[in-house]
Amino acid sequence: MTPVKPVHAPQTGFAVVGNELQVGGVALSLLAERVGSTPFFAYDRALLSQRVAQVRAALPPAVRLHYSIKANPMAALVQHMASMVDGLDVASAQELRIALDTGCDPAAIAFAGPGKTDAELRQALAAGICINLESMREIDTVARLAGELHVAPSVILRINPDFELKSSGMRMGGGAKPFGIDAEQAPGAMARLAAHGIALLGFHIFSGSQSLKADAIIEAHARSVALAQQLAEYALAPLSMLNLGAGFGIPYFPGEQPLALDAIGANLAQCVARLHGQLAGARVSIEAGRYLVGEAGVYVARVTDRKISRGQVFLVTDGGMHHHLAASGNLGQVIRKNYPVAIGNRMASTALETCSVVGPLCTPLDILADRMELPNAVPGDLVVVFQSGAYGLSASPVGFLGHPAAREVLVGTQLQRTQDEVLK
Amino acid sequence: MTPVKPVHAPQTGFAVVGNELQVGGVALSLLAERVGSTPFFAYDRALLSQRVAQVRAALPPAVRLHYSIKANPMAALVQHMASMVDGLDVASAQELRIALDTGCDPAAIAFAGPGKTDAELRQALAAGICINLESMREIDTVARLAGELHVAPSVILRINPDFELKSSGMRMGGGAKPFGIDAEQAPGAMARLAAHGIALLGFHIFSGSQSLKADAIIEAHARSVALAQQLAEYALAPLSMLNLGAGFGIPYFPGEQPLALDAIGANLAQCVARLHGQLAGARVSIEAGRYLVGEAGVYVARVTDRKISRGQVFLVTDGGMHHHLAASGNLGQVIRKNYPVAIGNRMASTALETCSVVGPLCTPLDILADRMELPNAVPGDLVVVFQSGAYGLSASPVGFLGHPAAREVLVGTQLQRTQDEVLK
Repeated sequence: MTPVKPVHAPQTGFAVVGNELQVGGVALSLLAERVGSTPFFAYDRALLSQRVAQVRAALPPAVRLHYSIKANPMAALVQHMASMVDGLDVASAQELRIALDTGCDPAAIAFAGPGKTDAELRQALAAGICINLESMREIDTVARLAGELHVAPSVILRINPDFELKSSGMRMGGGAKPFGIDAEQAPGAMARLAAHGIALLGFHIFSGSQSLKADAIIEAHARSVALAQQLAEYALAPLSMLNLGAGFGIPYFPGEQPLALDAIGANLAQCVARLHGQLAGARVSIEAGRYLVGEAGVYVARVTDRKISRGQVFLVTDGGMHHHLAASGNLGQVIRKNYPVAIGNRMASTALETCSVVGPLCTPLDILADRMELPNAVPGDLVVVFQSGAYGLSASPVGFLGHPAAREVLVGTQLQRTQDEVLK
Repeated sequence: MTPVKPVHAPQTGFAVVGNELQVGGVALSLLAERVGSTPFFAYDRALLSQRVAQVRAALPPAVRLHYSIKANPMAALVQHMASMVDGLDVASAQELRIALDTGCDPAAIAFAGPGKTDAELRQALAAGICINLESMREIDTVARLAGELHVAPSVILRINPDFELKSSGMRMGGGAKPFGIDAEQAPGAMARLAAHGIALLGFHIFSGSQSLKADAIIEAHARSVALAQQLAEYALAPLSMLNLGAGFGIPYFPGEQPLALDAIGANLAQCVARLHGQLAGARVSIEAGRYLVGEAGVYVARVTDRKISRGQVFLVTDGGMHHHLAASGNLGQVIRKNYPVAIGNRMASTALETCSVVGPLCTPLDILADRMELPNAVPGDLVVVFQSGAYGLSASPVGFLGHPAAREVLVGTQLQRTQDEVLK
């Protein structure tokens, strides 16, 4: 038996009409004309809505869903997400401004990050949002600044658990970490808050992200709830919030399969039902960034040259690692693997060849596809990188070599839909 | 015998006075006040001058030295470099604008890059700079655009050699590559240029960069000259330019040693002496970016928090991977290694500890130093990352998570010095 070569999970979100990939109902070639220049990122409004609806359907109604702006801070996209989710998570003062601009209730905005400066904490306090406290210094600083501003701070403790989310792309908990307060130091931190006269609202326990294993996520959620329940015994008053992070991943590379959400939802329902003591009335929230927006976006670059070097076909494009560091393999990957890639104006083509797609930068790091099977393409064609709705432009070295910036568009009209309609 | 743990090459460029690292003669704490905010990149004008003088002293007088702007495009720095080198190499229209703004002779500016767009080629032709042609399409496009603009193009051919620079950090030649025209296709490209009536000025042969092995560079230069000599037999007229790239690396990681330039210079002198036929009168040029500026710069971030998690000390700073992707290990490194790091206001401290330096981003990728021995530091202290003059801010995802931008300063007064004075 020949071993089966792993392939990318099928890209079924974006429709294809004839040769043209459709984004938000617009044929890609026409969309490129509408944008006015390449490269660009295009996000599909309906796919965003659909994903939120899918997650809601899988989660128990009692669980709140938050959008983590860091996955994609484009203002129009955040506005759309804000209209559908229960809260927004921010990681900087700039993300806080974007969140407030949407009109989101400040009480539904939470600020996490291991190095919050005094200035940022001051802004967060003035905005009245929830602050995820991650160190003893932050506790003392918030107490001092709240006094100066004459405001009552809304705070939860971010806990570094004594376990990690297994088989996750990014391990955020377990062992020595800069994130949050070690679980074993939490009772001391709670006493310190009490000494400052600050009421604790709850806990944020986040053990990792980008996991495709439902079992691992279920285990992490169960252990997080158990840990929260243990720590809640040190609380002086009932707690109202428990943020379990999420850890939901999306399939990027050959052989990866989409996450099975239903079992995760069922487990969360059990977790919620088990809450007791000071956590009995707490609302559980899940924060997701990549999972909500990652699959709703594509990166589009135009082929500028087609070269054959020593038998290998290279499509040179006007886009590359400066706009999409993750797809080039330079954002946390150890061994580079290809994102799913297509020729967006030759979707029906059956004349295929093995080729590499590179960008315009003078570095061998600038690669979007390494020896993939793609339709024969020529200058003017549009290369599409799927799974590009999260950690794309905002996570890329846009000034590298001084090439033109990429634009971002959110495509599709704003329709009033019920959840049922969206799910259809 | 215990194996000796590899250490960083000593950082001797920047003076130390008391506890303070000096940049351009200014104590780091004072410089931070002058800049007005952290983090920042600081480049030392005298160190830049000194490096250029050292390279000049090692190279034969007949060899031209070019600065590759892509290593660091800060305008003030490029202006300073332009005053000392023989030419500027650019990789985009934006870098071309920066180069022209210095007042550099357009004939001494060269534009290389695998995906030059029609718009960029048009700008280059209008500016009268030298274009490094890298594909048959570029040859045809330049011929067409030169006709439209009624200008005579200055062009050289960039050759993808049939060998690579051994043990280089970035392999740019050998095998199938998107850069330049395969050596074996060069005679056809030269005939195509001739058919368009375009005079060929010479060749650009670049086999790799960031090498610390003088022997490997010497071999690459010798083979490049031999290849150029072979290809020159197809030239219809004498050639005036031969760009050998450089490949000169700087030591970043423990165990790496500075490059020995003298042997490289001696070999280049022999190479120049051997030029004959259509290359007899050609000027050889070396282009260097990282080697000229990389060691003259530091990245400076302020400690915002000091945390101990499960026995490990973390210094959290206001800077990180969003300003300095390379130091975080996410720009071409397979296994992350530490750049040389110091506490810039505790240089004389003997109270050391093992600690990790991380940034403010909510990701485990945001790390500047992993378990290094550093002076005990507290919030307010200044973490310094050495070897940060090249591929720092411009190669980093500055928008990631929306944290404040880093500033850049070029420090030290502009003095008229002779080469001898600089070398003292």
